[in-house]
Amino acid sequence: MPLKKVHPASKKKKAKKVNKSKKPPISVQGFRASGIACGIKRGRQKDLALILSDVPACVAGVLTKNRVKAAPVLFDQKRIPRGISRGVIINSGNANACTGKKGLADARRMVSITEDSTGSKRGQMLVSSTGVIGVPLPVEKITKGVTRLVKALSPTGWHTAAEAIMTTDSYPKTVWKRARIQSRTVTVVGIAKGAGMICPDMATMLAFFATDANITAPALKKALKGAVEQSFNNISVDNETSTNDMVLIFANARAGGKPIGPRSGGFSAFSRLLTELCLSLAHMIVMDGEGATRFIEFHIKGAATYKDARRAARALSGSLLVKTAFFGGDPNWGRIMAALGSSGIKMSPERVNIHFNKVPVVRGGLDTGKQKSAARAMKSRRVNVTVDLKTGKSSYRLWTTDLSRDYVSINSSYRT
Amino acid sequence: MPLKKVHPASKKKKAKKVNKSKKPPISVQGFRASGIACGIKRGRQKDLALILSDVPACVAGVLTKNRVKAAPVLFDQKRIPRGISRGVIINSGNANACTGKKGLADARRMVSITEDSTGSKRGQMLVSSTGVIGVPLPVEKITKGVTRLVKALSPTGWHTAAEAIMTTDSYPKTVWKRARIQSRTVTVVGIAKGAGMICPDMATMLAFFATDANITAPALKKALKGAVEQSFNNISVDNETSTNDMVLIFANARAGGKPIGPRSGGFSAFSRLLTELCLSLAHMIVMDGEGATRFIEFHIKGAATYKDARRAARALSGSLLVKTAFFGGDPNWGRIMAALGSSGIKMSPERVNIHFNKVPVVRGGLDTGKQKSAARAMKSRRVNVTVDLKTGKSSYRLWTTDLSRDYVSINSSYRT
Repeated sequence: MPLKKVHPASKKKKAKKVNKSKKPPISVQGFRASGIACGIKRGRQKDLALILSDVPACVAGVLTKNRVKAAPVLFDQKRIPRGISRGVIINSGNANACTGKKGLADARRMVSITEDSTGSKRGQMLVSSTGVIGVPLPVEKITKGVTRLVKALSPTGWHTAAEAIMTTDSYPKTVWKRARIQSRTVTVVGIAKGAGMICPDMATMLAFFATDANITAPALKKALKGAVEQSFNNISVDNETSTNDMVLIFANARAGGKPIGPRSGGFSAFSRLLTELCLSLAHMIVMDGEGATRFIEFHIKGAATYKDARRAARALSGSLLVKTAFFGGDPNWGRIMAALGSSGIKMSPERVNIHFNKVPVVRGGLDTGKQKSAARAMKSRRVNVTVDLKTGKSSYRLWTTDLSRDYVSINSSYRT
Repeated sequence: MPLKKVHPASKKKKAKKVNKSKKPPISVQGFRASGIACGIKRGRQKDLALILSDVPACVAGVLTKNRVKAAPVLFDQKRIPRGISRGVIINSGNANACTGKKGLADARRMVSITEDSTGSKRGQMLVSSTGVIGVPLPVEKITKGVTRLVKALSPTGWHTAAEAIMTTDSYPKTVWKRARIQSRTVTVVGIAKGAGMICPDMATMLAFFATDANITAPALKKALKGAVEQSFNNISVDNETSTNDMVLIFANARAGGKPIGPRSGGFSAFSRLLTELCLSLAHMIVMDGEGATRFIEFHIKGAATYKDARRAARALSGSLLVKTAFFGGDPNWGRIMAALGSSGIKMSPERVNIHFNKVPVVRGGLDTGKQKSAARAMKSRRVNVTVDLKTGKSSYRLWTTDLSRDYVSINSSYRT
């Protein structure tokens, strides 16, 4: 099972170039995608996307655990357990959350008109939304746009679909990869949106995957759950998720071969492939964090338990003082110690070692006197912060960003 | 027990005026205080303070619960249980935290030289520090300054002492009040520092009180604990406190009368007096929040349990998206709903009512269409946000600030 290198279809600084470049366009057999502007957003910004399988596909999903669930989440959570779907229609610019009964009716209407326009059976389309909460969905604009959206469908429409699901994202996020699994070439394509990972508890994160793998619904569900746990959940704090968070995967079996079950041979290879793609998208989301100037990995080692390691990592990524210190490039490691100490984990301050990239900053709980090289390390675009608690053997990695003035600017005027 | 109005000795905008004004200077019989510049901070900023009782006084303290405790906290936590003290020496500009054995020796040295210079018995002085973590304390500067600090002692030195304990505070924080308790006139004076309540889990908060009440050590301890619980702890998130947090109270019995015990007549009157002063200082700290432009009260009503009410309030005050919305004056109430939904409390979104000051913003989980008046309410300097969950009878109030670009600026360059 030779896994090829992941190809992120676009990178931040090259976003515009990539659109015009001659990279082979992404595609996965039996799937088409599209994105158009239907008028929810101002100007001519794309705000409506469609992913469609030519035939009914297996589907699995991971939905928000927020008590306040958006209408499309409420709708999909009843439909996903059936395990069969043709695809999903997604709008940006409006979350259709906190919109009551009308919101649910609007979600239902989005779905049924898409089913009609694509010739899908009733009961086989899903829906997703992202944007402002509490504002009624301009559903007429969407229903008027659906015919155009279906016409725009193309096997290579993934990049356009990724553009249409953006909110504060600064670039569309797509990944794809091929691998040989049980003598078959299997392709997975994924698109995602999300750029608020500094505050992951509420920023909407959407990701959609399509694969031609022949995999059963239970296996697909298991693989997705595992992949999300190791990727999107490690850029998130606790189970605090937005009203709209959603990860879906569709598998249409076009690659042929024997169906992959939860315990069959190809399962772990498929899981690894999906996890790698989820991780790529998760890192892209962090890199595109609102106002972010640095990508930070908090790597906790030597924790007494896995829970302690996770708690410590989350305490660091949740600390405004730690995040602002990284923005300023100030090796104020005392804030890291204080955040660890208040996180409730088992620790002995006098044992702690801290590295910024490879620079030892704290040894045995004390300053190493390497503030200058630490400051240089902190000013790189990517900073690995390793904290060795020296109390046990558990570890955890979490990815986040710094906290900049721009984050505040973006989020204080999001709707204006 | 007629409680007089609290007199904050200074207010943000009037800070400079107050220094020159003809308000009666604060004093409490048998106590003196002082503040000087000893060279820890740059320029001629005051950075060393002393509070001294003429005679051994009862003492009680509430110290940080952070696992990483500063040297002065480690020192005091052994000494406070004795219940007797002459006072405390406090430096700003350096937290003496994460400084190992040298830090503890430095704290001990600060104390013994102060005991010698003031003629206190060995074992009766306390110590406190605030400032940068992880940098060795310039203890020579302090020991050289102590003689001058003792000479500067004055019954009306509270304001100067309050100045000397400031870090990022924009004004010194002092309160005082007199009340008749069991036919005796009792005075309580308090000073505090703290201006990082946006991130209360790590910003150091110090407060020191002196009273001439004749109160026993157990009663003093009980009164302080109760007062802190109802004031400073409601501007804080969880039990996450800084490495240096400390509240101390000294009572020298100069007011005379029968000693107040934990169950005697005057206890509740004294507790109320102390709580009122703690609350005043707590609100001053919030108002002086780093970069804060608004004072926000989150009032949760109708929660299923007290824990749920507190958790909801803390979720709102801990949300960057909610805080930035208030900075921008954007009535984006969806962020409040999302924060509530992810807090883990029992709630039915369709029952929730939200008011900004007196403007109904959400009724039954839906927008009321009063965005314009809500935006006006949000732009006032003080915003009361009332959330009625309608699932029970418990309530909780918490005070916090918005999150501004200036907060990021202050905290990204704190040490430079």
